[in-house]
Amino acid sequence: MPEPPDLAHIAHAELLTPFPDDSLRFFVELFGMQIEYQEGQSVFLRGWGEYQPYGLKLTEARLPGLGHVAIRAWSPEALERRVAGIEATGLGDGWIEGDHGHGAAYRFRDPDGHRFELFYEQDRYVPPEELRPRLKNVPQRHVDRGAAVKRIDHVNILAADIAANRRFAEEQLGYRTYEQVILDNGEESGAWMSLSIAAHELIYTADHAGGSGRLHHLAWFVDTREECLRAADLFVDADVPIEAAPSKHAVAQGMFLYVYEPGGNRVEVTTGTHFIYDPAYEPIRWTEAERARGQAWGVKTISTFHTYGTPPLDGTLGPPIPPTSALPTPGAPVA
Amino acid sequence: MPEPPDLAHIAHAELLTPFPDDSLRFFVELFGMQIEYQEGQSVFLRGWGEYQPYGLKLTEARLPGLGHVAIRAWSPEALERRVAGIEATGLGDGWIEGDHGHGAAYRFRDPDGHRFELFYEQDRYVPPEELRPRLKNVPQRHVDRGAAVKRIDHVNILAADIAANRRFAEEQLGYRTYEQVILDNGEESGAWMSLSIAAHELIYTADHAGGSGRLHHLAWFVDTREECLRAADLFVDADVPIEAAPSKHAVAQGMFLYVYEPGGNRVEVTTGTHFIYDPAYEPIRWTEAERARGQAWGVKTISTFHTYGTPPLDGTLGPPIPPTSALPTPGAPVA
Amino acid sequence: MPEPPDLAHIAHAELLTPFPDDSLRFFVELFGMQIEYQEGQSVFLRGWGEYQPYGLKLTEARLPGLGHVAIRAWSPEALERRVAGIEATGLGDGWIEGDHGHGAAYRFRDPDGHRFELFYEQDRYVPPEELRPRLKNVPQRHVDRGAAVKRIDHVNILAADIAANRRFAEEQLGYRTYEQVILDNGEESGAWMSLSIAAHELIYTADHAGGSGRLHHLAWFVDTREECLRAADLFVDADVPIEAAPSKHAVAQGMFLYVYEPGGNRVEVTTGTHFIYDPAYEPIRWTEAERARGQAWGVKTISTFHTYGTPPLDGTLGPPIPPTSALPTPGAPVA
Amino acid sequence: MPEPPDLAHIAHAELLTPFPDDSLRFFVELFGMQIEYQEGQSVFLRGWGEYQPYGLKLTEARLPGLGHVAIRAWSPEALERRVAGIEATGLGDGWIEGDHGHGAAYRFRDPDGHRFELFYEQDRYVPPEELRPRLKNVPQRHVDRGAAVKRIDHVNILAADIAANRRFAEEQLGYRTYEQVILDNGEESGAWMSLSIAAHELIYTADHAGGSGRLHHLAWFVDTREECLRAADLFVDADVPIEAAPSKHAVAQGMFLYVYEPGGNRVEVTTGTHFIYDPAYEPIRWTEAERARGQAWGVKTISTFHTYGTPPLDGTLGPPIPPTSALPTPGAPVA
Repeated sequence: MPEPPDLAHIAHAELLTPFPDDSLRFFVELFGMQIEYQEGQSVFLRGWGEYQPYGLKLTEARLPGLGHVAIRAWSPEALERRVAGIEATGLGDGWIEGDHGHGAAYRFRDPDGHRFELFYEQDRYVPPEELRPRLKNVPQRHVDRGAAVKRIDHVNILAADIAANRRFAEEQLGYRTYEQVILDNGEESGAWMSLSIAAHELIYTADHAGGSGRLHHLAWFVDTREECLRAADLFVDADVPIEAAPSKHAVAQGMFLYVYEPGGNRVEVTTGTHFIYDPAYEPIRWTEAERARGQAWGVKTISTFHTYGTPPLDGTLGPPIPPTSALPTPGAPVA
Repeated sequence: MPEPPDLAHIAHAELLTPFPDDSLRFFVELFGMQIEYQEGQSVFLRGWGEYQPYGLKLTEARLPGLGHVAIRAWSPEALERRVAGIEATGLGDGWIEGDHGHGAAYRFRDPDGHRFELFYEQDRYVPPEELRPRLKNVPQRHVDRGAAVKRIDHVNILAADIAANRRFAEEQLGYRTYEQVILDNGEESGAWMSLSIAAHELIYTADHAGGSGRLHHLAWFVDTREECLRAADLFVDADVPIEAAPSKHAVAQGMFLYVYEPGGNRVEVTTGTHFIYDPAYEPIRWTEAERARGQAWGVKTISTFHTYGTPPLDGTLGPPIPPTSALPTPGAPVA
Repeated sequence: MPEPPDLAHIAHAELLTPFPDDSLRFFVELFGMQIEYQEGQSVFLRGWGEYQPYGLKLTEARLPGLGHVAIRAWSPEALERRVAGIEATGLGDGWIEGDHGHGAAYRFRDPDGHRFELFYEQDRYVPPEELRPRLKNVPQRHVDRGAAVKRIDHVNILAADIAANRRFAEEQLGYRTYEQVILDNGEESGAWMSLSIAAHELIYTADHAGGSGRLHHLAWFVDTREECLRAADLFVDADVPIEAAPSKHAVAQGMFLYVYEPGGNRVEVTTGTHFIYDPAYEPIRWTEAERARGQAWGVKTISTFHTYGTPPLDGTLGPPIPPTSALPTPGAPVA
Repeated sequence: MPEPPDLAHIAHAELLTPFPDDSLRFFVELFGMQIEYQEGQSVFLRGWGEYQPYGLKLTEARLPGLGHVAIRAWSPEALERRVAGIEATGLGDGWIEGDHGHGAAYRFRDPDGHRFELFYEQDRYVPPEELRPRLKNVPQRHVDRGAAVKRIDHVNILAADIAANRRFAEEQLGYRTYEQVILDNGEESGAWMSLSIAAHELIYTADHAGGSGRLHHLAWFVDTREECLRAADLFVDADVPIEAAPSKHAVAQGMFLYVYEPGGNRVEVTTGTHFIYDPAYEPIRWTEAERARGQAWGVKTISTFHTYGTPPLDGTLGPPIPPTSALPTPGAPVA
């Protein structure tokens, strides 16, 4: 029987970058995010529409990839219920005192090895005077810089065994699976999951390269499809390597624009209003033949989308040369 | 402590019309809805994006207004919990066997007298061949007719005592209140409430005219603001009386376009992506002075918006002459 | 020295189709055009925003392709000047009495053999009561059917010798060349030309297949990029073969969506506001390397775009199987 | 008989401001323009899409208002023809050597006393390296700052005798009149005129206050309606006084957003694709009753729109308190 989930939403994600200055400049100048705080090797960044202080923790590291995903619970009781369940699986790492902007958090790993944290206590963002909005129901002034992303939208992570990780997310975290890709041999190769009516908040896609704990991409939301198109114009002029130009996904119906940030991680500007209101939703199951038809309007999915993740398995730094880029020098520093 | 709600969403609303043929033609030709079923004095209509068979039950009646609001529960257990609570308030009317497309439903009235139904069992829409979509995660082909509304979005109802009805919706139905208008004398005059991250699904606004159980408006969602603008062009050419041209609400940040359907009910074409992810969200409280500044971009709220509801208290049929209409003959039949 | 042109705009184009019923249904149901007149083997169709009675003459023929392009002059005197010039080139065919909706026209062929007509006298569209707009500065009610195209925008024709045809269009017709593709060997392989500030109205692109007088595509304008995106959704559901999904051109900056109409001709839904105000504009010259980078946002130009034209040189009927189509049955009849 | 015009387009306008620092900050930070040059009491500013070095010359003055309007001719010969005609009217002021970015210019005044200049020689903008675009057919990188206006679009000036000024513009400048407002007493009270297919480039509207040579507003173009909506969000947060929130004009069909810049001049963010291709277009004539119906979607035209111009007749500085502003402190300094 369907039950409303104990967890509310992904409060932030930590992204690792070997080129922290370039990555920071990218997220500030080209994604239009605000620096909310800095500490040690990390910078905490926010989109203008986030009620929480930040949605991105950007941390220097030897290789790019995902640091961790932090999920906020609905209540202290809900948090306790979920922690108890995870502890029983043996994947728990225990409590930490908290981090900038949030309280005590429980650490664990999904079966593929990605690090997660659960917590309930979360600070609410209070804007400084120069960022105070004129309408009191938005947390911060609108931003005009770059893509001007509103908030973190979803996390897409790679995993060797999609079914195992999907079941873990469903059973231990309360995620609902809205869409899946099932190979002809019966194996799962993708799962689009959510805690809300949003079409996807956590996505597992198959890591064909043999890695573990790797990242496919992080995505940020903008309010309109026109903002995705406009971001592409700005990114072209800024020599941002575009992996996939704006178009519409078949799965989950979202508008997408995929680029590489200077640390080598794939990031997305997305929007969409494909909501799932059915509490007993039956997951959509896509076949290989159906996926081979491409995205919603027939655009073929670019091959690197199925092969590239971070960290790279060979330890090579930097983004790949994107095959469809309009740009002659895709690896050039971001202006 | 916040808890995820037992109820999932408004599955449909019943609208009463004294001119059923004109209203039906309006919803089919100008809102772009499909007739899914007809029975007795009712026609069941759907937007292209609804998973359920219909979101609107249009019923002939002597006067316009709201028939009832039907809310789907998350599970049979959740339904039972809610019914038990309502029964204890004395506002319950008891179970009915169900209606077209859904199972047994529990009837009750809110303190202001609006009729509601709760149920869990809900049919899923199966499109006929000519409406079969090419992407399997949309329930029906896209529609090109009129505003081509996607799904019912929210219900805005008038009430004499906002606080009493808000508390009932919170306590008995599990709605979360995201925004409020509080008069200078401390009285509540509006409550925007939701079961999900959507900024509003059920709204109470003050009925200054002394009625009870009246409707302010029903709203349907489109995916983009451009669709709201385009709907206005189509409505002008079709002599639809426009009460408020497309602009952006301050409260809940939604794009709006308000018109009168031929039965005299106010209906809205809306879109928006102002989502509430915070499980412990503190309701935004607007003062009289703040609301006097108008909508998000400064457009003054039209006076009829504060005075007109259905049924009219004097029993007069038909829509009022909209003060801002571009049209010389606002009451003319819809083409 | 630049001079303002003697010719005003492409008033209509004639498209040939071996499947007239299917093509007609396509232009009415999926492009949203109105049948304005029928005569013999031809149907005259209009977009809602055209001041002239029609912008498309659709004519049954054994093979698809371009019938003729009709250009309206600024004045009778301007028409006479242009006719005198063309006659001197030996490419003139002489005057005809006119056709439905326009007066006497002068026929000629461009160096590649495409048929053109020049005229001045043009009827103005008078809508029937059911299509009368409510605002008097639009010629017809807005349309909600399919892509709801507004007006014919440009004609893209194939030619063996681009330079010869470009010079003819410049010298005899007064077209201004705004952009060009120049191959590494110095040969021209494309010319984007206009009589107005619009970025292109007549385009020549290289016919690598050895044909003559062939059509690359006809394009119709919509007011917004969102309408291009929405048209793609509608076309996917209607099994229209999409050759190139919505994206932005590098040359001339227009938004595009390319599909095949049932007769086998490529047609485009386009929009754009890249205007050329400089009376002494120097044509932009694109190199092979620059064009190899793809469209504005990096989308690679699909190979059929460089090879397919109508009529097909082998006499085969029907559209090719579009390599990027989302559709399993691209040749299926249009619903 | 219609003839193509001798003049090409409004190359720039000079705006006077009593608060040059505030106005400059407004055009740079909130309209997103670049400072191209500074000299004496003037700053030369450009939108990202202008081929010419600048479209706005912003000059310090005791009172706000229009400095002059500069129109570029199609050729030296066309310029000579027009100058000869104007000289014969007695309204000519003679030649000046030129100004930053353009060659010798002929000065004159229209019958209402507005200053104009005509010239042919115009520099072409060469971007510095940091503003070099990646696509060679745009003159400059895309801008993300504020409304990020693309280019100057039109000039709307007040005049006591509309008919006299319209005839002067038609006869001496070659403007074509596309739309007019004719009062019930037969008097003209507005004329929308253009040198191109654009729906308006020069507008005369009635000055009911008895002034002469006054400005109604200058307008800048953006590519999409979504950019108008987004500009409104940014302007609200920056305390820019909004006179009229985004909506669609009935006359000329453009999307509008009217605000006051700190010098007190009304300025507009606009877009639109209502093009006039008919060389023999008959001007649309609007009656008082038709205009009383409001804008395209029924929004009533705000009263200050009919009464406010610059310079103010009473010599009062600063913008009026805009009646529809969402803002409590409309005169507050721009952030």
